[in-house]
Amino acid sequence: MVVLHGKAELSRRRALEVDLAQMGAMAEKQLGDAISAFERRDMTLADAVVAADAQIDAAHHRIERDAIAILETEQPSGAALREIIASFKLANELERVGDLAKNVAKRTLVVSQELKTMSIATAIGRMGRQSMRALTDVLDAYVGRDMAAAQAVWSGDGNIDELYNSLFQETLVSMMREPDQVSACTHLVFISKNFERVGDHATNIAEVLHFLVTGEPLTSVRPKGDETPTTSVTIAN
Amino acid sequence: MVVLHGKAELSRRRALEVDLAQMGAMAEKQLGDAISAFERRDMTLADAVVAADAQIDAAHHRIERDAIAILETEQPSGAALREIIASFKLANELERVGDLAKNVAKRTLVVSQELKTMSIATAIGRMGRQSMRALTDVLDAYVGRDMAAAQAVWSGDGNIDELYNSLFQETLVSMMREPDQVSACTHLVFISKNFERVGDHATNIAEVLHFLVTGEPLTSVRPKGDETPTTSVTIAN
Repeated sequence: MVVLHGKAELSRRRALEVDLAQMGAMAEKQLGDAISAFERRDMTLADAVVAADAQIDAAHHRIERDAIAILETEQPSGAALREIIASFKLANELERVGDLAKNVAKRTLVVSQELKTMSIATAIGRMGRQSMRALTDVLDAYVGRDMAAAQAVWSGDGNIDELYNSLFQETLVSMMREPDQVSACTHLVFISKNFERVGDHATNIAEVLHFLVTGEPLTSVRPKGDETPTTSVTIAN
Repeated sequence: MVVLHGKAELSRRRALEVDLAQMGAMAEKQLGDAISAFERRDMTLADAVVAADAQIDAAHHRIERDAIAILETEQPSGAALREIIASFKLANELERVGDLAKNVAKRTLVVSQELKTMSIATAIGRMGRQSMRALTDVLDAYVGRDMAAAQAVWSGDGNIDELYNSLFQETLVSMMREPDQVSACTHLVFISKNFERVGDHATNIAEVLHFLVTGEPLTSVRPKGDETPTTSVTIAN
C-alpha cells in the first residue's frame, strides 16, 4: 500500500518518531546510569538519575500532546492510526522504565550506606544488566520493525524472572542470618523487583510492536507475568 | 457546543462507556476481594481473585479495540477525541489496579501460612481500605465528571504515602526482631507497597479526568510521587 502524505503531515509524524527515539535513548541511559550507580555505590550518579527523571516525564507529555494533535488534524486510519496508538503505548512503557530507574537510584542511596557484603548486590547488578539488554534489544527491534528480534526478547523474559526468584530467596536468607542487614536487604529486594519489571516492560514493548505491524489486538499472554515468588524460605540457624 | 451524532456512532460510544464502567467495577471488586482475602486469610477468595484477573485483562483489550475502531470509523476531534484518549488511559490504569489486586492475593497465600502476629497485617489491611476508598471516589468523580471530587482524591494521596512509610518502618522492625518472620514480612512490605501504588493510580485517574474535562495536557506533578522511604531502621536488640 502506498500512502501519500502532505509535507506538513510527514514532518509532524517524523518529529513524533524522533521524539520517541530520543525518549527511548533517555530511558536506556537512565536505567544504565541507575545500574552503574548501584554497582559502584556512586551517590553523585544516583542523584543525577533522580534529577533527570523529570526530562523523561516531559518527553512523555510532549509525545502524548503531539500524538493527539496528529489525531486531531490528520484523522489517520489503518497503519497510520496504529502508528499513533503504538507511539502512545511505547511512550507509556518508557515513562515507567524511567520511574523504575529513578526508584533504583533512590534505593541505592540507602543501600550503599548500610550494606556490608556485596555478593548479592553484584548478582543483582548483573540481573539489572540483563533487563537493560532486553530493553535495548526490544527498542532496536521496534525501530527496525524486526518482529523476530522482538519475539526473542518476549520469549527470554522467563530467564529474568527465574533469576529474580533465585535472588529473592537468597536475599531473604541474608536477612534471616543478619538482622542488621534487614533494611538494606529489603531495598535490595525492591531493586531486583524493579529490574524484573523492566523485563516486563520490554515484553510489553514487543507486544506493542506486534500490534503495530500486524494490527492484531494485544491479547497475547506474557511468557511469565507477575511471577511473584510464592515459596518461602527458612534456615536452620 | 452541540455535537450531533448518528445513531450508530452514539451506540458505539455508549458501549465504550458501559464497558469502562464495568471494568471500573471489576477493578474495585478485585481490590476489595483481595483486601478481604488478606484480612481474613481466606485462601479460597485469594485464589478466586488470581483467577478473575484474566477478565479484567479481557475487558482492557476489548476497550482498546473498540476505542481504536471509533478512531478508525468516526475520526473524532475535540471533546469527542479526548473522550476516546481518556478511555484508553483509564482502562490502562484499571488494568494495573487489577494486577496489583492479583499480586496482593498471590502474596496472601504465602503470608497467611507464616505470619504469627496480625497487628501489622491489620494496619496494612486498613491502608488497603484507604486506597480502595480513593479508587472508588475517583471512579465516581470520573463518571460524574466531578473535578472537585477528583482533586480531593489527588490531594489526599499524601496520606496514603505517609501511612505506607510508617508501616514500612514497622514491618522492618518486626523482621529484625523475629528472623523467622522475614519471609512473611517481606511479602507484607510488598502488599502495602501495592496498596500505595493503588493510591498512585487513583491520582493518575484524577489526572485523566482533568485532561478529559479541560483539554489541558497531563503535566501536573503528583502530590507525592514515588515516596520511597529513604530512611533506615535500626533497633537495639
